[in-house]
Amino acid sequence: MRHKILKLLKDRSPSYLSGEEMAQLLNVSRTSIWKNIHSLQSDGYRIKGSPRLGYRLAGIPDLLFPAEIAGELQTKIIASSPEIIHHYRQIDSTNSALKTLAEKGAPEGTIVIAEEQTGGRGRMGRSWSSPFSKGIWLSILLKPPLAPQDTPLFTLLAAAAVVKGILVNLPDLPVGIKWPNDLLINNRKVCGILTELKAEADLLHYLVIGIGLNVNSKEEDFPAELRNTATSLYLENNKEEVSRQKLASSILQEMDNSYLDYLNNGPGMVISAWKKYNITLGKDVTIKTVQGSFSGKAADLDSDGALIVEEEKGIKKRFQAGEVTLENFTGGQDPF
Amino acid sequence: MRHKILKLLKDRSPSYLSGEEMAQLLNVSRTSIWKNIHSLQSDGYRIKGSPRLGYRLAGIPDLLFPAEIAGELQTKIIASSPEIIHHYRQIDSTNSALKTLAEKGAPEGTIVIAEEQTGGRGRMGRSWSSPFSKGIWLSILLKPPLAPQDTPLFTLLAAAAVVKGILVNLPDLPVGIKWPNDLLINNRKVCGILTELKAEADLLHYLVIGIGLNVNSKEEDFPAELRNTATSLYLENNKEEVSRQKLASSILQEMDNSYLDYLNNGPGMVISAWKKYNITLGKDVTIKTVQGSFSGKAADLDSDGALIVEEEKGIKKRFQAGEVTLENFTGGQDPF
Repeated sequence: MRHKILKLLKDRSPSYLSGEEMAQLLNVSRTSIWKNIHSLQSDGYRIKGSPRLGYRLAGIPDLLFPAEIAGELQTKIIASSPEIIHHYRQIDSTNSALKTLAEKGAPEGTIVIAEEQTGGRGRMGRSWSSPFSKGIWLSILLKPPLAPQDTPLFTLLAAAAVVKGILVNLPDLPVGIKWPNDLLINNRKVCGILTELKAEADLLHYLVIGIGLNVNSKEEDFPAELRNTATSLYLENNKEEVSRQKLASSILQEMDNSYLDYLNNGPGMVISAWKKYNITLGKDVTIKTVQGSFSGKAADLDSDGALIVEEEKGIKKRFQAGEVTLENFTGGQDPF
Repeated sequence: MRHKILKLLKDRSPSYLSGEEMAQLLNVSRTSIWKNIHSLQSDGYRIKGSPRLGYRLAGIPDLLFPAEIAGELQTKIIASSPEIIHHYRQIDSTNSALKTLAEKGAPEGTIVIAEEQTGGRGRMGRSWSSPFSKGIWLSILLKPPLAPQDTPLFTLLAAAAVVKGILVNLPDLPVGIKWPNDLLINNRKVCGILTELKAEADLLHYLVIGIGLNVNSKEEDFPAELRNTATSLYLENNKEEVSRQKLASSILQEMDNSYLDYLNNGPGMVISAWKKYNITLGKDVTIKTVQGSFSGKAADLDSDGALIVEEEKGIKKRFQAGEVTLENFTGGQDPF
């Protein structure tokens, strides 16, 4: 009902629509209309009321409501209907919430999106700062009929899709991927991706891909210890705000396009898209792993997503996991 | 207290030990002794009571009590103390129970072992028949500091360790591994392994390795539809029963040895042990995958556990997942 009233108001905007007309069109009571209008207003929708003319939609808040995100989407799987878009003003962690939904049988393509995370998580159990309405804190449920060994390709897919989604909105931003899936602008981290999974040894049950993208964060929105190493689209876009609704829609659309292409045609496009936007290959890197640290030139991306590093003596090593530091950035090292 | 009383009785066996002496040695009341003796008896321990002599241990049931399994073990990680051995007479599924314990923070090496599973599971969501006291229904929790891509090596490790554990007790049994981890004797399945995992894209949180080994099952213990394709150690051992306690201890010991070797020296031994006991390589196989069926000669095992199949034209394909049928068995096909 809420969605339907919102749609009527949007279609009529910027003109007025009377409560009586809405009640008739939707076959509900005037009281029900009034209650839903009130609920929309309390969510931040600017709806003006006039005793004679009725209601008029004067402004939509830049919050990530299912109706606002789904409106622009042409997706086949991911967030393909408002019912599988779970929006929260505040939540512990979108990944944790989505894993709970997955355990209860949520369908593929279900997403959890929140205005604020109180316990946002990054890789290796690190915390992820996620203040209210400043970023896109989004998790996507996928169930590809593949093995857990194929997971790294999905994290690469997600990184490239987020870059594409950003560039649709901000075509000139110099955003690049640090292996495997950190997004950097001017040597500062703007987005991290945390992929979690449940599986049998050779069959994925589900993947939860969590995306944390700093959008409209000002400097003071970052914890002090991150101010030199993190950035946001706002800060890199001449301090102009970016529509989170449009950005979320673009990212979901690019994710869906890439995922369908992978399912239909295999991972070729994933690898080529990642390579196109990466800023890792060709650089001198140090990679920290549980087995120790290794230095060399990032020579190539293997077909399974592993990073191939060439040591000084020409010996090539494959890495499926690790923390990469890019050595030749200004300042001598990458701070992540 | 129960473990302590049992130990006193075992140490004194086959002689009698008075209730009063036990009460003094353990500094508890005679009533407490009596209650624990009663509890042991109801578990199947044959404890004879004599009004003048006290108690005597006359027989131990072949049930998989922590005290009986742990007694023979020299393990460093797996089931290394009775506290991390969880024994149930009946449970839904040992894998499910262990995953619940893992979510609550159970330490590495924790095992769940049951006399009977009411909802035992095999790969791909199939059910696994697990009647009371007929087999070893066992799950092991591991937390190797590795990536989900390394999981297949652990299923190979488990398969080889179970073969070794069986051969310690029954050295002449012709047991072999069908890729990746089914154990066959005379073309019938005697053991299946179901590995489940939770992970980030490049870091395992935990592995639960479930082992279902048919030990003393008679023909009538199998569901009718399995009688031509399944077997037990009893059926293949001239219908002589096998000690499940000794077998469980041997398997846990071999698992622990192999796991420590992997952690310390890498997966070389895993690959060579699997190859030693496999009955797949060199055979004509058909492999069913989500992408379709492929036929050829099983040429080799890759270093990450993938099966390399050589098609007629000499083209080699790598498989990380799939159901293998061995083509050249009597009867024309392998029935699993």
